[in-house]
Amino acid sequence: MYKIVLMRHGESTWNLDNRFTGWADVDLTEKGCAEAKHAGQLLREAGFTFDLAYSSVLKRAIRTMWITLDEMDLMWIPVVCDWHLNERHYGALQGMNKAETAKKYGADQVLQWRRSYDTPPKLLAEDDPRTMYDDPRYVGLKREEIPLGECLKDTLQRVEPYWNDTIAPSIRAGKKIIISAHGNSLRALIKILDGISDQDIVSLSIPNGRPIVYELDENLKPIRHYYLGDQASLAAAVKAAASHGPTL
Amino acid sequence: MYKIVLMRHGESTWNLDNRFTGWADVDLTEKGCAEAKHAGQLLREAGFTFDLAYSSVLKRAIRTMWITLDEMDLMWIPVVCDWHLNERHYGALQGMNKAETAKKYGADQVLQWRRSYDTPPKLLAEDDPRTMYDDPRYVGLKREEIPLGECLKDTLQRVEPYWNDTIAPSIRAGKKIIISAHGNSLRALIKILDGISDQDIVSLSIPNGRPIVYELDENLKPIRHYYLGDQASLAAAVKAAASHGPTL
Repeated sequence: MYKIVLMRHGESTWNLDNRFTGWADVDLTEKGCAEAKHAGQLLREAGFTFDLAYSSVLKRAIRTMWITLDEMDLMWIPVVCDWHLNERHYGALQGMNKAETAKKYGADQVLQWRRSYDTPPKLLAEDDPRTMYDDPRYVGLKREEIPLGECLKDTLQRVEPYWNDTIAPSIRAGKKIIISAHGNSLRALIKILDGISDQDIVSLSIPNGRPIVYELDENLKPIRHYYLGDQASLAAAVKAAASHGPTL
Repeated sequence: MYKIVLMRHGESTWNLDNRFTGWADVDLTEKGCAEAKHAGQLLREAGFTFDLAYSSVLKRAIRTMWITLDEMDLMWIPVVCDWHLNERHYGALQGMNKAETAKKYGADQVLQWRRSYDTPPKLLAEDDPRTMYDDPRYVGLKREEIPLGECLKDTLQRVEPYWNDTIAPSIRAGKKIIISAHGNSLRALIKILDGISDQDIVSLSIPNGRPIVYELDENLKPIRHYYLGDQASLAAAVKAAASHGPTL
């Protein structure tokens, strides 16, 4: 049996503003840093240790991982940062808050973008300054691999090969792993692991900075999963994440 | 031509106390964190960027690297942590300050341990609680690879294969690299690069948190090297490092 840990990054500055973040590289708030520290304490107290850490290339996920590993005295383990674990790319919505998007595109349209599994948001224009074509994080990618906007299905289609070809083999090789990622890249991963339907996955809410333990059988099929930490405050955190909006 | 950057970690709590640190995993002071941040600023302002970072497995070097990379917006590049870059292991002296060691072993003996290239310090006893046999950082090593005390020559003998087999090939492969390490593992590396004599290398002083740029030819032989930053304060920092004592 294997045990892996998934973790959504701590609160970011744009979570706080309720803005669609996507691939925009915003940092953690002070509360987000405290959440990451608490995650590390929970993991340490529960006796976890890791050989290998995965993160997206976005600093809110990396800093969450760094703070967690620091708290566990594991700063020295490898942290593999890969764009496949990035948040869903929110296209032209990136940087806008809920009120702004509703005003610009209509509340119904925005709701559909948020709640649909396979409707992409309004895409960024090729010449939009928010595209990532010149970002050094993505210079190794083909131009068509750099998204201009993704539906959750698109996100899953890049998370899945990374799980199959990189993460899963490392688990089978006996590595104890932890993943720091985002609301939607974790939804994608959990959909893959638990076989959740297209319809149900979009309403799964994942609170910031709470370690989720997945116990997997020898075929990496989940036996059970649970959140670490205080279960009363957990329920409130899940509810807050659900009401919060876009799961940025 | 290649350009690499070497960096001694920022001031640690035991630098401040003037204690022999070696493989003891002490953290940076606030000043040490500020030094690392300043190093990142200097590198950014000088137009440096990196694809790959190397560090020892000791947190004073890793934190120095993290802060530097954060300042350069390069948190996402791989940081390879390896014990071969660790500080010289100071054996039974680890944890003691200059006055304590002088009192216990005599000032002449301590001076010889500090200034000699090939005289190891008093070794740790096999059952000393300060040995690293049970530390998860070193579980992959053979017992005889885990030192009980090293002279600078011993340190060089582990730094050299790591340079030849791991770091140098990555430079030849076109990676832009930065190394965060320690007074003596950097002495060893600089001895290898510049062909400095056994006698001269022990008096080379390297200040904390100052990026050193090495320009190398196609055979990785140094063309020139220089410290980044204000040269007036640099001279004072080198002098302070020299008078500071053990280069911990």
